[in-house]
Amino acid sequence: LITLTTDLDEIYVAQMKGSILSLRPDARVVDVSHDEARFDVRRASFSMMCAARAFPPGTIHVCVVDPGVGSVRRAVIADAGEALFVGPDNGVLTLPLSLYERKRYFELDAAEVSGRTGRPVSRTFHGRDLFAPAAAMLDSGVGPEELGSKLYGIQLFPVLEPSLSGGRARGTILFVDGFGNIVTNIPGDLLRAEEGQSLSLELGGKTFPLTSRSCYADSEPGELILLVGSQDTYEVSLNRERAQSAVGGREGDEISLVLEAQG
Amino acid sequence: LITLTTDLDEIYVAQMKGSILSLRPDARVVDVSHDEARFDVRRASFSMMCAARAFPPGTIHVCVVDPGVGSVRRAVIADAGEALFVGPDNGVLTLPLSLYERKRYFELDAAEVSGRTGRPVSRTFHGRDLFAPAAAMLDSGVGPEELGSKLYGIQLFPVLEPSLSGGRARGTILFVDGFGNIVTNIPGDLLRAEEGQSLSLELGGKTFPLTSRSCYADSEPGELILLVGSQDTYEVSLNRERAQSAVGGREGDEISLVLEAQG
Amino acid sequence: LITLTTDLDEIYVAQMKGSILSLRPDARVVDVSHDEARFDVRRASFSMMCAARAFPPGTIHVCVVDPGVGSVRRAVIADAGEALFVGPDNGVLTLPLSLYERKRYFELDAAEVSGRTGRPVSRTFHGRDLFAPAAAMLDSGVGPEELGSKLYGIQLFPVLEPSLSGGRARGTILFVDGFGNIVTNIPGDLLRAEEGQSLSLELGGKTFPLTSRSCYADSEPGELILLVGSQDTYEVSLNRERAQSAVGGREGDEISLVLEAQG
Repeated sequence: LITLTTDLDEIYVAQMKGSILSLRPDARVVDVSHDEARFDVRRASFSMMCAARAFPPGTIHVCVVDPGVGSVRRAVIADAGEALFVGPDNGVLTLPLSLYERKRYFELDAAEVSGRTGRPVSRTFHGRDLFAPAAAMLDSGVGPEELGSKLYGIQLFPVLEPSLSGGRARGTILFVDGFGNIVTNIPGDLLRAEEGQSLSLELGGKTFPLTSRSCYADSEPGELILLVGSQDTYEVSLNRERAQSAVGGREGDEISLVLEAQG
Repeated sequence: LITLTTDLDEIYVAQMKGSILSLRPDARVVDVSHDEARFDVRRASFSMMCAARAFPPGTIHVCVVDPGVGSVRRAVIADAGEALFVGPDNGVLTLPLSLYERKRYFELDAAEVSGRTGRPVSRTFHGRDLFAPAAAMLDSGVGPEELGSKLYGIQLFPVLEPSLSGGRARGTILFVDGFGNIVTNIPGDLLRAEEGQSLSLELGGKTFPLTSRSCYADSEPGELILLVGSQDTYEVSLNRERAQSAVGGREGDEISLVLEAQG
Repeated sequence: LITLTTDLDEIYVAQMKGSILSLRPDARVVDVSHDEARFDVRRASFSMMCAARAFPPGTIHVCVVDPGVGSVRRAVIADAGEALFVGPDNGVLTLPLSLYERKRYFELDAAEVSGRTGRPVSRTFHGRDLFAPAAAMLDSGVGPEELGSKLYGIQLFPVLEPSLSGGRARGTILFVDGFGNIVTNIPGDLLRAEEGQSLSLELGGKTFPLTSRSCYADSEPGELILLVGSQDTYEVSLNRERAQSAVGGREGDEISLVLEAQG
């Protein structure tokens, strides 16, 4: 089973599938996301983390959000035991790899892949010429160590790890979804409100009152709510409206949730 | 065979597929539509009806257009014999179920599904945690009665059933497609124009002259035409332009087609 | 293996898949592109060419960009030996067929297909009723000659074939991709710059300086570059910006790349 996360036009995604199916006619290929904003490595990384959580063991996750294609940036395979990841070494594997304790890294060798496919690797489309064939081979049982040499680390982007201090939980916005919900990386069991405490959101220097709810529909019109979202982290939502339009915030921004004694 | 109709971001659709493939590695999953306007139950219902018409017997159709997720709205399975439908009990099954005479309904039991998957059911993403696993189980041959308790009815939204009175056929707009064509629920054999009769469209209090044609290309530039569309119902179209921009109208609106003696 | 290139709404693409899977439950169907601008035959033709290049031998490529559906335009099958193409006879097969030397053409017979499926062929949706079933049958091993009668040619649209004269390479814009890169049909080995020569782009009566690079990332900010793109032809790009916004140009436009002695 192979998943694809890219910022490519549909026809280039199709060429990647053609490349996989040429080598492995029985491969199953599932699209994760191709709507990534162009070159948005953080967003693609979140998409891959969601995929890594939901797919069965042994899945190979391929990412092509790759502005540096053909330059000196490396191509890598990360072997996390339960799952394999293939993509450019530009940080895009940061979030999915955070799910696993043990990881082994390999630099994907274009000459090795090209030798096995009998096709050249272009300098402009590694998705089709390098990552897709490598995924097909891994899916056929080829070991990652056969496709490249061992690496002792790969690029990771900085993530503000969630923390709790007093009644303040700090973290990062991981994703603004299509409904405008703001998905954070703060675990959904970090805050425990007690009687007489009020909850608020701090974002971009502003403070907004928040109400804790357990589902989207449990809210009053216009009420900004905090709930535990589908990735088991806190999410800020506005029933049938876009929370992000009301409070701002983008992927990567710092966000705080604050519990305090009611004035 | 499982189809998916949602208003979700791609990554959440992918998580649903991961959930299905985790339980049933050989499942075949086909996307019907994920472009639904957010929370648009009528539009999603039309999409599911189109899918129900085109897929082979035994297909399981899953819908996740579900603003009430986690609240008191029920999750349901509808067994129409030739096809099964899984989704929230918010009316979204109205149009596909209108195709079948015999239907049995079940309230999907989250505890039963969770017991079988060994995973909790979140309150924010029933698509991944409840509907997708239920579909995978139904696709494996589990009976709907094993996944919940019998219901004697589900939510349906009101649809103005097509009618003919004098030369006036009344009905509803079911869908405005990407070309701007206005698809109605009026059967394409209801009107029979005779020599010397003129045809017109009444919509939103306005009247527009119509010409009856048998295909999109059989029209003059700028000519508003009536034809029998791909769902065997009347459709209003404007050759290479958007009929909807010219005459207005939205899904759910009443529409009339009127034949009368030419003045 | 069947690929689909259309300008249809998702739900109609799903109906095509339902139609294929009803006849051939084991068929593998891959989406090439459904984002084609409505009725854009040139763009769809480029998409099909990309698919034809990347998919394994024996693939059946179906196109439904078909403003003339139901009118006198023919429905055709082109058998290129390594691949089969099914679609309307409106020029859409021009670019993929240019990849092959030997081609046989057949006019797809709606009555024959309808006789085999037991279903009527509508006049408004040949994708579902004619092309998809024909593809399913071809994929099952039915010969194209069984589904229609031989033709001695099909519609092709004019393409300015690439040429080199002096230091000037002329050709056509085939595609403007989602990054704004301008993909031409000029083979990527046509120009050989020598010491002291300067390179420029002529498009729409204007001239722009160009720098030759081997990958997108090998450029200065704001620098317009020429590289050999993923289809092995020259491509004009602007690092992390949209080249097309800077220089203009649309699919089908003439484009020239000029090498001359530096002033």
